[in-house]
Amino acid sequence: MAKKPAFDLIFNPKSIAVVGVGLSPTIFNSGKLFLDNILEFAFKGNVYPINPRGGEVSGLKVYTDLGEVPGPVDYVISCIPAAGVLQLVSECAAKGVKAVCLYTAGFSEIGREGRKLEEEVRHLARRSGVRVIGPNCMGVYSPKAGLSFCADFPKETGRVGLICQSGGNTIYLVRAAAERGIRFSKVVSYGNACDVDESDLLEYFLEDDETDIVGAYIEGVKDGPRFRRVLRDLSAVKPVAVLKGGWTEAGAGAAASHTGSLAGSDQVWEAAVEQAGAVRVDSLDELVDMLVTFQFAPVPQGRRVAIFGVGGGASVTSTDDCAAAGFSLPSLPQDIRDALMSAIGDEAGTILRNPIDFPPMLSSNDLYRDLLRRVFSWEGIDLVLFQVPLRGIVLTLPVAQAIFDAQIDNILTVRDECRKPLAVIMHYLATGEGWQAASAYHQRFAGAGLPVYLSTLGAMKAIDRYMRYQQSR
Amino acid sequence: MAKKPAFDLIFNPKSIAVVGVGLSPTIFNSGKLFLDNILEFAFKGNVYPINPRGGEVSGLKVYTDLGEVPGPVDYVISCIPAAGVLQLVSECAAKGVKAVCLYTAGFSEIGREGRKLEEEVRHLARRSGVRVIGPNCMGVYSPKAGLSFCADFPKETGRVGLICQSGGNTIYLVRAAAERGIRFSKVVSYGNACDVDESDLLEYFLEDDETDIVGAYIEGVKDGPRFRRVLRDLSAVKPVAVLKGGWTEAGAGAAASHTGSLAGSDQVWEAAVEQAGAVRVDSLDELVDMLVTFQFAPVPQGRRVAIFGVGGGASVTSTDDCAAAGFSLPSLPQDIRDALMSAIGDEAGTILRNPIDFPPMLSSNDLYRDLLRRVFSWEGIDLVLFQVPLRGIVLTLPVAQAIFDAQIDNILTVRDECRKPLAVIMHYLATGEGWQAASAYHQRFAGAGLPVYLSTLGAMKAIDRYMRYQQSR
Repeated sequence: MAKKPAFDLIFNPKSIAVVGVGLSPTIFNSGKLFLDNILEFAFKGNVYPINPRGGEVSGLKVYTDLGEVPGPVDYVISCIPAAGVLQLVSECAAKGVKAVCLYTAGFSEIGREGRKLEEEVRHLARRSGVRVIGPNCMGVYSPKAGLSFCADFPKETGRVGLICQSGGNTIYLVRAAAERGIRFSKVVSYGNACDVDESDLLEYFLEDDETDIVGAYIEGVKDGPRFRRVLRDLSAVKPVAVLKGGWTEAGAGAAASHTGSLAGSDQVWEAAVEQAGAVRVDSLDELVDMLVTFQFAPVPQGRRVAIFGVGGGASVTSTDDCAAAGFSLPSLPQDIRDALMSAIGDEAGTILRNPIDFPPMLSSNDLYRDLLRRVFSWEGIDLVLFQVPLRGIVLTLPVAQAIFDAQIDNILTVRDECRKPLAVIMHYLATGEGWQAASAYHQRFAGAGLPVYLSTLGAMKAIDRYMRYQQSR
Repeated sequence: MAKKPAFDLIFNPKSIAVVGVGLSPTIFNSGKLFLDNILEFAFKGNVYPINPRGGEVSGLKVYTDLGEVPGPVDYVISCIPAAGVLQLVSECAAKGVKAVCLYTAGFSEIGREGRKLEEEVRHLARRSGVRVIGPNCMGVYSPKAGLSFCADFPKETGRVGLICQSGGNTIYLVRAAAERGIRFSKVVSYGNACDVDESDLLEYFLEDDETDIVGAYIEGVKDGPRFRRVLRDLSAVKPVAVLKGGWTEAGAGAAASHTGSLAGSDQVWEAAVEQAGAVRVDSLDELVDMLVTFQFAPVPQGRRVAIFGVGGGASVTSTDDCAAAGFSLPSLPQDIRDALMSAIGDEAGTILRNPIDFPPMLSSNDLYRDLLRRVFSWEGIDLVLFQVPLRGIVLTLPVAQAIFDAQIDNILTVRDECRKPLAVIMHYLATGEGWQAASAYHQRFAGAGLPVYLSTLGAMKAIDRYMRYQQSR
């Protein structure tokens, strides 16, 4: 497709100008926040702050306008008021800028007058060849290019592409997914989509060799038939998870005020996503679960689950969650139960039929590894859930942490041998302390290529959707 | 009721013995963990570790048996194997012990042999007058008495009573609820319920002046008709939220292996809870949401909501969540929208019709307080949601934190003036860092008597259930 080279340039700028950088360090100064995030993220090309008053900011010379910048500028971030945007796009065209991200708001989302201005920006963009992202957005996060609007986003690249019509939701999705090991090829917060729209971006991801998996938060589409066509083509080769913002009538009204989006009816949307073969999800957290599943979960051959983990009550509610999502828990054969029973000796208070609530303190040794091997290699199950209510079992004593680490070693060893799909449930993180403790384990599991979920229901809904997606292909 | 004085003694022991305390500091040593948690929680009465070998542990003299303890013993925690429990209960009777908590497992949950032993323990308990909690449980958390099985539980007392058939779930529920400001009168992890059962405890809470709100996690009931009667009587005077563990067929099987519970069918359960006038919830997190709602949320007069908060995308998805739970978002009248618009000046990218995505950096001043006052006192709404995607907006700059604190001051001031129900949504906490930052704010909001929720959908489901509970009375 002819557009791909142009978009490659958008995602790989060698030089950036931030226009509308104030000189004082307040949170009113969005230009300086963009600038500082780019610098802290360690963008390797040239960065030029622009302000008509000149001066210096964040250790950089401030240029009075784009024309004054000595070298080429590939990517521009606009933090000026809406009234100046047409002029800025013209200047971008004169300077040979590839793309301008309009953080600037005050367009179609505010009503008629804004719609008119947005229309003018679109025409200018199309005429001049400068691609416009937004307005009313955060723009591009492209780790390969060293470009980010949040300095704490991962610097490593990955295989997930994400488009999101809300800046705040983009930030949440990237952070929440990163916490669970997802890394991104390209992410775009694209706001009102005056020029570059959802179909352009999905079409790009279809062609993009750096993207294997796609997530999307969409409030409204610009061209329904084209969107359906592009989504179908993309879903045929790469898994796509889609969340619709504004699926209720009230929510659609809010979406119109947010990104000027004209939302179709929920039924139309549901049918479009389903017919295209994409996976529809119902919340941001489900979208993250789905990306984690696409990335890390091997598709089970069937719906028979073994739950291995800690806690009687947690085993009961996790079993309910599996059943509710359409999975079964076959009873382990007697010989495996006998082996488990003889391993725990007189340590009662355990559940061994399936779910298996094995005492965590016995889980660090070779015997445990042998037991795991028997459970994993039993052909009566298709998927193992390893559930860890972390705060409840470890970290009260250092010895507990050592045992937990050894248990993970055992699980990873057996997983590698048996090639049975395995998902990790790190649930019941009730407090900041619990979350802090969990983060290192999230990274460890994700580093071993395992999907980590925050609830059993979240896991099973996502795995169910993935299985149905695979079956429909 | 005759039982209340006996139960008062269970919840207010003056002396405790932990039987089966090993002398080495390993996690196999559950007796020592119980002991150390009691000591760290700063129980004010006497604490006696018991082990036939004698010696010293955690700075305390170890007695060789219960009879050797010099003074009276009110409450005993058993960490010995199941085979020794009958003998222990006899010794408790001889010593005048009021209640024994059997952490010891290996009873009805393991099958026929265990059921027989449990039956014998029950008969002995009834004959001797020693009340038995468990087996297979953590027992009592009673902050007024200084008794806890987790040292990090709140030391302050509150008005919520909780019964829970799983120890791990009890720990999670207390921690998760405490994080959001809930404090407890009495909590019981009651396991297999061989003697003291769910109906006894609910009946006690009915009479207990220290308990206004009740939560329950139940895997199976001992006496269906009695349970229905007690639950109906209790629900008539105090709100009760109930979670059924093992509501699916598979989950019921797991519950049988966990606490030996015979779960009825889900339809029977649903009908029983509904007819009793209690509130049924579907997960531990919904149970926490429900306790928070009972404790802190004034019941709105109607279903008209205003959402005040940060983030365009968050406003859209929160609106969807409100609509999905049966709430509406009326458009603000033009005069209030004009006032909001003139306050923000040329700060575009905001939504002002309702939801209201007001720029957070303008929220610390008197003008903001006046605007809030107009929104709160508008008679077109019954409930205000204040939504805070914390990690997205604050704490990147110190000035942002100061502004956020001032914003909270404004909101609390106006809430106090206008007496309009207000709920706080602190969502999108994607990381350990975000959770840590949120904890102080959770406490601050809860300290001001506000319900705090982790998602809009969670909030609206709980508030919807509370409204329906109130309407049905």
